Amino acid sequence: MNRRELNALLAAVSMTGMLPIAASAQQAGAPPRTRVGMLIHPDMILLDLVGPLTVFNIMQVDVRLIARSEQPAKTDVGIPVAPTDTFASAPQELDVLFVPGGLKGTVDAMRDPDTLQFLETRGKSARFVTSVCTGSLLLGAAGLLNGYEATSHWYVRDFLPLMGARVKKDRVVADRNRITGGGVTAGLDFGLTIAAKLGGEDLAKRIQLLLEYDPKPPFEAGSPERAGGALTDDILKRRNAVIREAESEARKAGGRLKI
Amino acid sequence: MNRRELNALLAAVSMTGMLPIAASAQQAGAPPRTRVGMLIHPDMILLDLVGPLTVFNIMQVDVRLIARSEQPAKTDVGIPVAPTDTFASAPQELDVLFVPGGLKGTVDAMRDPDTLQFLETRGKSARFVTSVCTGSLLLGAAGLLNGYEATSHWYVRDFLPLMGARVKKDRVVADRNRITGGGVTAGLDFGLTIAAKLGGEDLAKRIQLLLEYDPKPPFEAGSPERAGGALTDDILKRRNAVIREAESEARKAGGRLKI
Repeated sequence: MNRRELNALLAAVSMTGMLPIAASAQQAGAPPRTRVGMLIHPDMILLDLVGPLTVFNIMQVDVRLIARSEQPAKTDVGIPVAPTDTFASAPQELDVLFVPGGLKGTVDAMRDPDTLQFLETRGKSARFVTSVCTGSLLLGAAGLLNGYEATSHWYVRDFLPLMGARVKKDRVVADRNRITGGGVTAGLDFGLTIAAKLGGEDLAKRIQLLLEYDPKPPFEAGSPERAGGALTDDILKRRNAVIREAESEARKAGGRLKI
Repeated sequence: MNRRELNALLAAVSMTGMLPIAASAQQAGAPPRTRVGMLIHPDMILLDLVGPLTVFNIMQVDVRLIARSEQPAKTDVGIPVAPTDTFASAPQELDVLFVPGGLKGTVDAMRDPDTLQFLETRGKSARFVTSVCTGSLLLGAAGLLNGYEATSHWYVRDFLPLMGARVKKDRVVADRNRITGGGVTAGLDFGLTIAAKLGGEDLAKRIQLLLEYDPKPPFEAGSPERAGGALTDDILKRRNAVIREAESEARKAGGRLKI
C-alpha cells in the first residue's frame, strides 16, 4: 500500500463515523479554555500547521482541526492529517481562527464556497483571525482582510490588495485582530506572537526556550532581497502556473467583494 | 473517538499488514536516488521530524520513515505518523540516517535494544549520521557519537559526554559525517545544512527561499543565555523527572560502551 492508498484507507475509516472528537471535554466548573480552530485542507504544507500547532499544544489550549469533510487531508510530505471537526460540527465561537498555506491547496480552497463561507462566519466572531504562508489569500478571498494590513508568502503577497488588503513586508503582520505570517517557516514567529497575545510574553518566552528557537540559518537566502534575483526568478518560473492561478482567484474574489 | 482511540485504530489498521511501502519505486535505468532513513518512534516531537522532512521532500530524495513496528507512532501534537518501513524491512544502506527527538520518547528508545541495534548497524555504513533535538542522546546510546563533537537540546546536551561525545554549543554541529542539531526548531537549520552537503549550496538556498526561512523571533529567549536564569530554571524544574531519566540512561549507555 502506498501513501495515496493509505490516505484512501484513512478516509474510509473516518467515513464510518469514527471521526475523532476533540479530546478536550470541558470539566464541570473549570474556566473555559481558549479555543483554537485550525483549518485543514488538502495539499496544505504540513510545516505551516505544525509550527503553530506545537505552540498551541504546549499552551494546552483546545485545538480543533477543522475540515470540509471527515476525510483526512493529504499534505505536501505525505503524512495525512485527520480533522477533529467538520465545518458542520465545528464550534460557532473560536478564540483563534487559523489558516495554513500550501499554494495549490489554497487556490483550490479559494474556489470552494463552503470553505469561504465557513471562514467568513467564524472569522466575524473570532477574537483573532490568523494565517501563515499563502493562507492569507484564503482569508482575503473570504473577505476577512479587506481594509487590513497583511502579509503572505513572498511570491503571492502582492495579490492581497486585489482583495482589499494593504501589503506590509514583515515576518508577522498584526493589524487589530488580524495576524498574518510570511511563508512556511514564519509559523514559528507567528506562533510565539499569538502565544504572547493569548497568554502573555512570559509564556511566549518559555515556549521559545522549550523549542530552542534561536535560529541560525546557515545561508542568507530566506527572502527575495537576501537571495537575489537569480534564485528568486528561478522559483517564480518553476511555480508560475500556480502563482497565476492564485492571482486569477484573488481577482475573482476581489470582484465578489466589490474591491 | 478521541485521538488516543484514533491512534489505536490506526495501529490496528496497520497491523493488518497494509503498511504503506515507500512510494518511490526505482525506475529502471535511473540513477540511484539519495536515500534518507528517518527514525520514527512513539512520543517524538512532530516538528523535529517535519522540519527536515520538508527539506528532503523538496529535494525529492527517497525518504523512508522507519519504525520498530508497523504501528503508527503517536506524536506530541496528536497527529500519528505511519512508518513506511520497519527495522526488518528497511534498506541496509542509507545515505542519511536521521533521528528526531522528544525527550520521553528518546529515553524509551534508549532502553530498547532493537532500536539501538538498528541505529548501530545502519549508522556504521550511512554517509551521514544525523539528529535533531534529544535524538542525539539516542545516537550516543547506540555508540555513534563516541569521539565526535555533537549537540542536543540545551537541557540534556551535557549528558552527551557520558557516551563519549564532546559537547559543542552550536545550532548545528558537524564533525566528519556526524551532524547534530539543537532543540526542536534547529531542524530547519539542520535541514538546510544537510541539503547543502547532499546537493550543494545553491540548492539549499533555493529551499531556504521557498520556505521563506528568514527568521525573526518576536522575543530573545531561544537559549538559556538569552532567556536568563528564571525561565531556564522553570523549565528544568518542570522537566526534572524525565531529564534525570535521560541522564541515567546516558550513564548506563556509557557503561555498555566502556566510556
